[in-house]
Amino acid sequence: MRLAVIGVGLIGGSFALALKEGGKVSHVVGVGRNRANLDLARERGIIDAIAGDAGAAARGADVVLVAAPVAQFPAIFAQLKDCKALITDAGSTKRDVVAAARAALGAKIAQFVPAHPVAGAEKSGAGAASAELFRARRVVLTPLKENPPSAVAQVQALWEACGARITRLDPDEHDTVLAAVSHLPHLLAYALVDDIARRDNAEQLFSYAAGGFRDFTRIASSHPEMWRDICIANRDRLLSELRRYQAKLGDVERLLQASDAAGLEKLFAEARAARDRWLKSSS
Amino acid sequence: MRLAVIGVGLIGGSFALALKEGGKVSHVVGVGRNRANLDLARERGIIDAIAGDAGAAARGADVVLVAAPVAQFPAIFAQLKDCKALITDAGSTKRDVVAAARAALGAKIAQFVPAHPVAGAEKSGAGAASAELFRARRVVLTPLKENPPSAVAQVQALWEACGARITRLDPDEHDTVLAAVSHLPHLLAYALVDDIARRDNAEQLFSYAAGGFRDFTRIASSHPEMWRDICIANRDRLLSELRRYQAKLGDVERLLQASDAAGLEKLFAEARAARDRWLKSSS
Repeated sequence: MRLAVIGVGLIGGSFALALKEGGKVSHVVGVGRNRANLDLARERGIIDAIAGDAGAAARGADVVLVAAPVAQFPAIFAQLKDCKALITDAGSTKRDVVAAARAALGAKIAQFVPAHPVAGAEKSGAGAASAELFRARRVVLTPLKENPPSAVAQVQALWEACGARITRLDPDEHDTVLAAVSHLPHLLAYALVDDIARRDNAEQLFSYAAGGFRDFTRIASSHPEMWRDICIANRDRLLSELRRYQAKLGDVERLLQASDAAGLEKLFAEARAARDRWLKSSS
Repeated sequence: MRLAVIGVGLIGGSFALALKEGGKVSHVVGVGRNRANLDLARERGIIDAIAGDAGAAARGADVVLVAAPVAQFPAIFAQLKDCKALITDAGSTKRDVVAAARAALGAKIAQFVPAHPVAGAEKSGAGAASAELFRARRVVLTPLKENPPSAVAQVQALWEACGARITRLDPDEHDTVLAAVSHLPHLLAYALVDDIARRDNAEQLFSYAAGGFRDFTRIASSHPEMWRDICIANRDRLLSELRRYQAKLGDVERLLQASDAAGLEKLFAEARAARDRWLKSSS
């Protein structure tokens, strides 16, 4: 099987590596904006050849993975309008990606099975790619009504070959869920780091930051362009989550203002219990 | 040297273990509210004996460490009013602890050298204690004008024997700095988990939470009573940080509302750069 990867970063590179190591893919063509990154991908054996654009990469490919920041999808799908291969993606948002695919691909939309591997990391680029990235991670498929079951099954099989656990959602539900548990936390972490970094005593403040701060803000080292695109693509759902969280902080502020020790302890204890239940159920 | 530990949890237990392993302490008496925890501490060799209260534990001790949640400090200091030993503490806030010590100890305040090991973990209790907890971690001393230099040096030497890096702040500066880089992030993490846990579809939402969410919310598994006490003790500084952060989220909301992609990317890129500089400088 021949694979084309549009965007050979952490996600695209890891997908290619995992499928090569699993013997599912024999040849990988990569496309990207950063030549040094593509050269690194070739050195690491992630890709075997470099193509100039998505259209060229897709010729002769059996499967195309689009793994660029989501704002680039309309231009990439336009290059894939004559593509004969099965197409899938790794975009972190799904409503905008599906809309872009419908607009560009026309009847070929049947060949596009959208997917989102919920397996990021704060590292990016081909240098960070790993065949193990998706092991035991969740990959969400958001199949379209036009997709033949065989196409969905084939995409599912590829992600399963990467070691992923597959679930299905519709694109709308996907974007709603991810806004709450992924997009909002990223925004909150970026905001906290930026707020501290802009102060006159930022250096002193950072010098007292410890392990709790490090973990809380790990996702603030994520790829800025990728997260810009996610925020814009999922703007309505993210705004709704952000406003909901601001209201929650208003509740917390009132507890604190009133020195409501019992109310604070209850909130903390219930949050801890919920988190511990989640960790137990997900392990 | 004989040590008394008031509150044999993660911090108190780790202090005792590290000093025993370093040969600095030969005998440890523990005091606590939870008998099962004290028994576990004795089984693990963290303490050698159990006393009924802080006053009894301090008799015959050379050094007393107070490592309970900070709301208990006034009652503990009252029990230490006739204490002849050097006293130090591990409270996460310092203005309230110093005020409680002054109120209870009178002229004996000279024997009390306040300290805060910035080395928490989301685990708690004697079962989580480790001789390595403070290795390369920061311990903040907030010495008082009444402290003889020899007393400060002695407390510093004990924390250094645990492997800690020592800095000094005044209590007021300590509480201001920690509100920003520790207390606020805890509040934010608790608030996010609690907000999700209260929704009808909480189970679905948690099931799509991945590594980013896990790390962001790790500190929401911290000890609820300890964090209740910190929030109340440092209420004014924490409220000021919370309101500042709410204003920052208002800025982020406006960027998002306006679909200001460039503004969002700039914020994300600057936050990432600041965090990466911090990680580099602190490693």
